[in-house]
Amino acid sequence: MPETGGGAIAFHMQFLSDNSARVHPKVWEAMQAADAPDTPYDGDALSTRLDDAFGAVFGREVAVLWAATGTAANCLALATMVEPHGGVVCHPDSHIEVDECGAPGFYLHGAKLLLAGGEHARLTVDSVTDVLDAIRDDVHRVQAHALSLTQATEDGCVYRPDDLAALTALARKRGLKTHMDGARFANAAAFLGLSAAETCGDMDALSFGFIKNGGMSAEAVVFLDPSLADVARWRRKRAGHLQSKGRFMAAQLLAMLDGDLWLENARAANAAAAHIADGAGDRLLHPVEANELFCRCSPAERDALRARGFVFYDWGPDAARFVTAWDAREDDAAALGKAIASL
Amino acid sequence: MPETGGGAIAFHMQFLSDNSARVHPKVWEAMQAADAPDTPYDGDALSTRLDDAFGAVFGREVAVLWAATGTAANCLALATMVEPHGGVVCHPDSHIEVDECGAPGFYLHGAKLLLAGGEHARLTVDSVTDVLDAIRDDVHRVQAHALSLTQATEDGCVYRPDDLAALTALARKRGLKTHMDGARFANAAAFLGLSAAETCGDMDALSFGFIKNGGMSAEAVVFLDPSLADVARWRRKRAGHLQSKGRFMAAQLLAMLDGDLWLENARAANAAAAHIADGAGDRLLHPVEANELFCRCSPAERDALRARGFVFYDWGPDAARFVTAWDAREDDAAALGKAIASL
Amino acid sequence: MPETGGGAIAFHMQFLSDNSARVHPKVWEAMQAADAPDTPYDGDALSTRLDDAFGAVFGREVAVLWAATGTAANCLALATMVEPHGGVVCHPDSHIEVDECGAPGFYLHGAKLLLAGGEHARLTVDSVTDVLDAIRDDVHRVQAHALSLTQATEDGCVYRPDDLAALTALARKRGLKTHMDGARFANAAAFLGLSAAETCGDMDALSFGFIKNGGMSAEAVVFLDPSLADVARWRRKRAGHLQSKGRFMAAQLLAMLDGDLWLENARAANAAAAHIADGAGDRLLHPVEANELFCRCSPAERDALRARGFVFYDWGPDAARFVTAWDAREDDAAALGKAIASL
Amino acid sequence: MPETGGGAIAFHMQFLSDNSARVHPKVWEAMQAADAPDTPYDGDALSTRLDDAFGAVFGREVAVLWAATGTAANCLALATMVEPHGGVVCHPDSHIEVDECGAPGFYLHGAKLLLAGGEHARLTVDSVTDVLDAIRDDVHRVQAHALSLTQATEDGCVYRPDDLAALTALARKRGLKTHMDGARFANAAAFLGLSAAETCGDMDALSFGFIKNGGMSAEAVVFLDPSLADVARWRRKRAGHLQSKGRFMAAQLLAMLDGDLWLENARAANAAAAHIADGAGDRLLHPVEANELFCRCSPAERDALRARGFVFYDWGPDAARFVTAWDAREDDAAALGKAIASL
Repeated sequence: MPETGGGAIAFHMQFLSDNSARVHPKVWEAMQAADAPDTPYDGDALSTRLDDAFGAVFGREVAVLWAATGTAANCLALATMVEPHGGVVCHPDSHIEVDECGAPGFYLHGAKLLLAGGEHARLTVDSVTDVLDAIRDDVHRVQAHALSLTQATEDGCVYRPDDLAALTALARKRGLKTHMDGARFANAAAFLGLSAAETCGDMDALSFGFIKNGGMSAEAVVFLDPSLADVARWRRKRAGHLQSKGRFMAAQLLAMLDGDLWLENARAANAAAAHIADGAGDRLLHPVEANELFCRCSPAERDALRARGFVFYDWGPDAARFVTAWDAREDDAAALGKAIASL
Repeated sequence: MPETGGGAIAFHMQFLSDNSARVHPKVWEAMQAADAPDTPYDGDALSTRLDDAFGAVFGREVAVLWAATGTAANCLALATMVEPHGGVVCHPDSHIEVDECGAPGFYLHGAKLLLAGGEHARLTVDSVTDVLDAIRDDVHRVQAHALSLTQATEDGCVYRPDDLAALTALARKRGLKTHMDGARFANAAAFLGLSAAETCGDMDALSFGFIKNGGMSAEAVVFLDPSLADVARWRRKRAGHLQSKGRFMAAQLLAMLDGDLWLENARAANAAAAHIADGAGDRLLHPVEANELFCRCSPAERDALRARGFVFYDWGPDAARFVTAWDAREDDAAALGKAIASL
Repeated sequence: MPETGGGAIAFHMQFLSDNSARVHPKVWEAMQAADAPDTPYDGDALSTRLDDAFGAVFGREVAVLWAATGTAANCLALATMVEPHGGVVCHPDSHIEVDECGAPGFYLHGAKLLLAGGEHARLTVDSVTDVLDAIRDDVHRVQAHALSLTQATEDGCVYRPDDLAALTALARKRGLKTHMDGARFANAAAFLGLSAAETCGDMDALSFGFIKNGGMSAEAVVFLDPSLADVARWRRKRAGHLQSKGRFMAAQLLAMLDGDLWLENARAANAAAAHIADGAGDRLLHPVEANELFCRCSPAERDALRARGFVFYDWGPDAARFVTAWDAREDDAAALGKAIASL
Repeated sequence: MPETGGGAIAFHMQFLSDNSARVHPKVWEAMQAADAPDTPYDGDALSTRLDDAFGAVFGREVAVLWAATGTAANCLALATMVEPHGGVVCHPDSHIEVDECGAPGFYLHGAKLLLAGGEHARLTVDSVTDVLDAIRDDVHRVQAHALSLTQATEDGCVYRPDDLAALTALARKRGLKTHMDGARFANAAAFLGLSAAETCGDMDALSFGFIKNGGMSAEAVVFLDPSLADVARWRRKRAGHLQSKGRFMAAQLLAMLDGDLWLENARAANAAAAHIADGAGDRLLHPVEANELFCRCSPAERDALRARGFVFYDWGPDAARFVTAWDAREDDAAALGKAIASL
């Protein structure tokens, strides 16, 4: 990690993480409007509106729970799909495999992650089929119970509707439930120019991320198969994630849906990323289809960029990661793009 | 539960739960002041100040983690003390036994709660000793690894320093770590008129509650034995409780400590409770030593109170629970006290 | 425990535990007959006969798995019935609550045991109803998913068919699956003079014990609801209980069923217990309905009995437990009965 | 799997699995000699001799527990070394990764297996170092707590003392505990011509296998670091692996140690494997250093071998696995070798 000194960062030069970004003013407003006594936990007037509000976005009946982190959202969703003796097919670069300190092992009581490859962190029908075919159908082997993929992927790339249709068809044929980690789902939808439903495909559950996109502390677990939500409610409480003042969680989500703020914010972040991509050219390790860029970049080059005030993470010895957020200024992004181009 | 209709409640008549109360303005201010890019998770400038800030309150070196709920705080603390094959001595009415949907079983990987009695939900040296003595020291029996008690108790009562000293001495003699569930720790300290350190005694860890006391979504796990904190950090991430914008969590806690807002709020809540207690007289099932009152109250009497606008929970068939919060108005509390007196 | 010196015990004076008893010669024969190469695990010719063999005993289709201990059998059965966020209603004296070092917490991933009382360790419709009624139906409380009872009970008493019918009817009405811990199921059947099916009632699964009854190392998990067995097979492997030379496990069970050896052995043990009971008279703490006796007996009296060569466990400060096994000699049992009578 | 029909196999043509082999007569004798009443569980005269008996074999103080399967032995050993939030470095082909239905996830409460490569299923200092170096030292990543390797490996190959010394040195430097899965430890020792201590190296714990080597149902968990054994005792009970008639488990182990029967049996199995290897020539996929052979072998060739009465498993589409056991006849092995040579 760069030496950020643990202190505040001049935000306009900040490409460290969308996790570092500010909270959108409309989210603040909605939270403050929620500051009146109401039924605790998720019995309040806002939490009880979530199913309908998200149902309108997805054009179908859904059941929705708020959760404080993407890790919790992913694990609560998967816990409804995977028995302790089962497994989840996912990509080796997936957040659940790499970045959650084994949270799926905790929430799924020791279930196993079964790794299938694919360029740009995108699973393919072939890679998933290979993994499934290699699992001998006897009690010595962990059987796959679910498939989990990330939209946009950890490499900043996007599944197209056809990709999703093929993967969910495969999953259903093989008896797997399906989960989408949508930490940057909004950026994927914005890039594709498609609806939430089209961006999600026929998944059983979606971790719909808002925190990286201008929220503060609320993600949504959207059960497109609403029958799964009941188990998730028990598991959320049992995991200590049923916040007592849940109205502030619901307020964030509703503010984000209102007027499609989620899409507006994602478009802004993606636009900034596109500006940087213009300068990055063939340094790019992956197509830029959301708000993350991974660039070949030597240590000396990274030093040079940092000397000019840009803040970002190293990505291994020879690359850098730049992430844009909803509040990135076009000028700054363009400046970074130019700076990279001039290296 | 009363039929609150899932909607907003006229707050001045609200004695349902301190969980329903508003967020203190100073907490809002601190959160908004934190709305600038910073290192994500708990690497930000505010989170890294917590150890020192709480250390100053407790007059000793401590290690502090924020957590989103009391359930998470309790379980993260206990997870550092109890092996999966061990147990936790606690009261049958304790929150960890009754109200957390088995969260300790989840976080402690199946460890057992071992129940010891005591009036007003207060453990005693005798009751704990009886439980410990009854555990045959062989591999067939779950051995106690920790003792957990609640300050103020689930019946709204308070352990005195002598009580705590005797219990922690017993625990240490028997090789148990110690944990205090301080969901209403502030109310206990305010009632006792003692410092945080005196109110806590020589515990290894404290779940220091703020949400019921004017916070929004942040509790503190205070490790008075700082060596326990390292394990808790892994477990917090693994439980999906490491929020990416942790600065908003830390901001709440720091605001609460600043100028002893936590004590000021608790004193207000306790004062309101005392007003009600004045009217409740010998209807009270437990001494009122914090901000909760449990009153004998028939269904007809409860109807009468509700008809006058008071909002509260039934507590079994023949009682009612009234809880005051930091924002209770003295007038309303006095009115409730009178209403009860006139039943 | 008595000071047995960790060495061999003169068996004819041994009333310590049916766990200490010898292996029946017919079990030895069957094991040795199984000593030829066969498909490993449970694919062998003997293991694959178990469903039919037990089906014949119970007069219905069942699915049967062998397991090495009663603890494993109980937990594997319950693991098919109880989700990690659920609970099991059982007696405070039940083996799963008291004597398994928290194994249910391990196998059920933190599910909770919910204790219902009853004399002689027998659950009653009233005690179970009280427990169930006290569980508020919301996510804060662990809900019961299963009912588990022990036949014969830990106090050596027996449920009659009417008792079982009432309890299983209650369980079904309340949505609970049902499990019987039959560590001494044979002794119960022998006492009742009823068939296995009548002794078991309409349970979903039975841990059918053989080890205390002349076996060496094999218990049977009998799924009277065969649809539950599939999950149990995965869990057995995952718990390290799928032995590679499973044919020796199956051989023990088949030998026990052959010619109703299980009943013959249990009748012998029960008969010996009845002899002792004759002498124990009103010292008995519980009716003697199987092969265990619990007698009031002071330390001095216990010393006197031990001085005469009888080996048994203390049962708290003022009682002794005597257990008879299939190989108890009538003479020895009668001698013990007389010795107790003469105290 | 071949169609073995679930029935008994003509043993002299049997190269299916050492799990299918018979029990050695001396093991039977020892078990029958143990058939007298004794203290149940592991308090008997034989179980209490295990520490000394294995201590003599290893030339150091050890603590030893019996367990019914290799899976249980591995997991009980690892459970003393790995916290739930940690991980175990092991080979992708290791039994704990591939063949235990996720048992490590169960016993280690969701800890993660971290895969390091190496030819012939042998970990190398380089492959382990790469895995460890890639784990960023922060709470988002599962940290390695232990290293587990298999001796002989799943490909039938053996670590030399230098290999072990380098790997254990690396592990200690990086703060990892060490575990050896010795399902075929005896075959490794026999191949190397080295003592148990040299074959094991400086591991903290060894799963010492006997079942594949002429035993019936007992493996030994040998804690070369005896301080780890205490936790394992609790975990064994909690996993339902503390058998009540443990004397029959201990008897098997002691019989195996007596007169180095374990080595004698392994030498016989290895010798048979060498005969087959003579005929297999360059069809061998791995060096034959124990009692397993993996040969390139087309479906037609496998049919031809089976037509001649040889029983074995397919190993993927183009290979076969042959395993020899203690009771393999040299003639049969030589015949198989010739049959392969003549394909």
